[in-house]
Amino acid sequence: MYVICNALNKQTLIQEIRSKQSFLCTGLDSQIEKLPLGLERNGQGLMTFNRDIIDATKAHSVAYKINTAFYEQYGKSGWEWMEQTLNYLPSNTFKIADAKRGDIGNTSSMYAKAFFETLCFDAITVSPYMGEDSLRPFLEFNDKWVICLALTSNVGHADFQLDEYRGKKLYERVIDSVCKWGTEENLMFVVGATRFDSFKEIRKIIPNHFLLVPGVGAQGGDLEAISLYGSNQEIGLLVNSSRSILYASSGKDYAASAEAEAEKMALQMAKLMSKMPQQ
Amino acid sequence: MYVICNALNKQTLIQEIRSKQSFLCTGLDSQIEKLPLGLERNGQGLMTFNRDIIDATKAHSVAYKINTAFYEQYGKSGWEWMEQTLNYLPSNTFKIADAKRGDIGNTSSMYAKAFFETLCFDAITVSPYMGEDSLRPFLEFNDKWVICLALTSNVGHADFQLDEYRGKKLYERVIDSVCKWGTEENLMFVVGATRFDSFKEIRKIIPNHFLLVPGVGAQGGDLEAISLYGSNQEIGLLVNSSRSILYASSGKDYAASAEAEAEKMALQMAKLMSKMPQQ
Repeated sequence: MYVICNALNKQTLIQEIRSKQSFLCTGLDSQIEKLPLGLERNGQGLMTFNRDIIDATKAHSVAYKINTAFYEQYGKSGWEWMEQTLNYLPSNTFKIADAKRGDIGNTSSMYAKAFFETLCFDAITVSPYMGEDSLRPFLEFNDKWVICLALTSNVGHADFQLDEYRGKKLYERVIDSVCKWGTEENLMFVVGATRFDSFKEIRKIIPNHFLLVPGVGAQGGDLEAISLYGSNQEIGLLVNSSRSILYASSGKDYAASAEAEAEKMALQMAKLMSKMPQQ
Repeated sequence: MYVICNALNKQTLIQEIRSKQSFLCTGLDSQIEKLPLGLERNGQGLMTFNRDIIDATKAHSVAYKINTAFYEQYGKSGWEWMEQTLNYLPSNTFKIADAKRGDIGNTSSMYAKAFFETLCFDAITVSPYMGEDSLRPFLEFNDKWVICLALTSNVGHADFQLDEYRGKKLYERVIDSVCKWGTEENLMFVVGATRFDSFKEIRKIIPNHFLLVPGVGAQGGDLEAISLYGSNQEIGLLVNSSRSILYASSGKDYAASAEAEAEKMALQMAKLMSKMPQQ
């Protein structure tokens, strides 16, 4: 079971990015209420939609991100649909549980088990507020990834993440500390696309870690600026898009429209990759 | 549906505390692997255990806290058991989802729906790292409660929560800001029992809010110190105990032992309440 459930390691992820010429992560934030015309507004409709979106985008997506909130809103059925969706993802894609978990050590162990063993995700997003022992249990899974919130894409990032202490902003202190608890082989950070002015400074602290970048598309982030300031010798970026792909069309052509949108982003990424430093 | 699902309001919660002479919250962090002798090690055993624990402690507990991690480790079945456990709780108890959620606004709305509508919890614990718009959707449910992490009971609290900015520690800045986003009628804060030296200062910022205090028992917090420094004119405390009640005995007498442990804590609380300021 463990062998099947192993996550993509860093080298394999980079190979996938080079092979697809894309560092796109498609966010499966699906909602029954927003399903396109022609699909039943129930779990079956949701699963048809997710499968169609995955099939339509898998040539251009190296990663998929399932935000747990969108599934938990439907209770236990939602967890079943989350599992079915996860199990439908191609084995060569990087599978992220966007769960933003974090608790005392004993409890974080249960979350790690939930997302790394019971569900076979490659990575989970975590919140750093409770410190080292809240993240450690996730990092102890050697073949899995932790993606720690650093500088988020929402307006509320300014409430606490920019607080300065000992000459560093909170998100910089988070990156500084957390990068010592894991390695570039099992740890990434979330940096919002709307914060591209900070990528340069962040790259001084963690030149080699992958960054998961949400906020392109519906939230307004700029892909070119992110690539310019955030990429590294190994690309080092997974840029997420959810709504702009999922709901590219509200009609029966939703799959073709999602494919066109993912392809458009991938082509832009391929162009940007050609300008990145050679290895 | 909404009427049934309404949470206890502050006055009702205080009445329950006075009536039971207890401010005990029992944490239902149940695990199949830790079930006492004589119970089947499966979901049925877990549900029997939870129902027995609830029946055994309900005379002494004003609140119950279900930590989502312990149920999520079992995937979709775990969510079903969480729902069944929640639905078994007496209507006059305060029902907390210890979920530590928080995401961008649009996503936090889904979490609020998950825990306040699909599941009928009274309150949810949230993480403040992502700021105001990550908490706002939870606070918009007028008849529900948000319990925001402030100063946690684990060792890792010292990694970021004590960072000082503009003369205040991060957890004080969190309390300062978040208390403006909600009211004493829909907002509580988590302050760990192991941090009782900080209660006095916290009470200067929020004299009237309820505090949810984990960390008594297995984590070593001192109930007397908490009551002395943390209580207010309306008691203002919910003190949680999980493992020391759930696993008071690993034998067939687990329910009687849990009852005895809850009663012991409630008696201590009644004694401490008699010393609190009169209203």
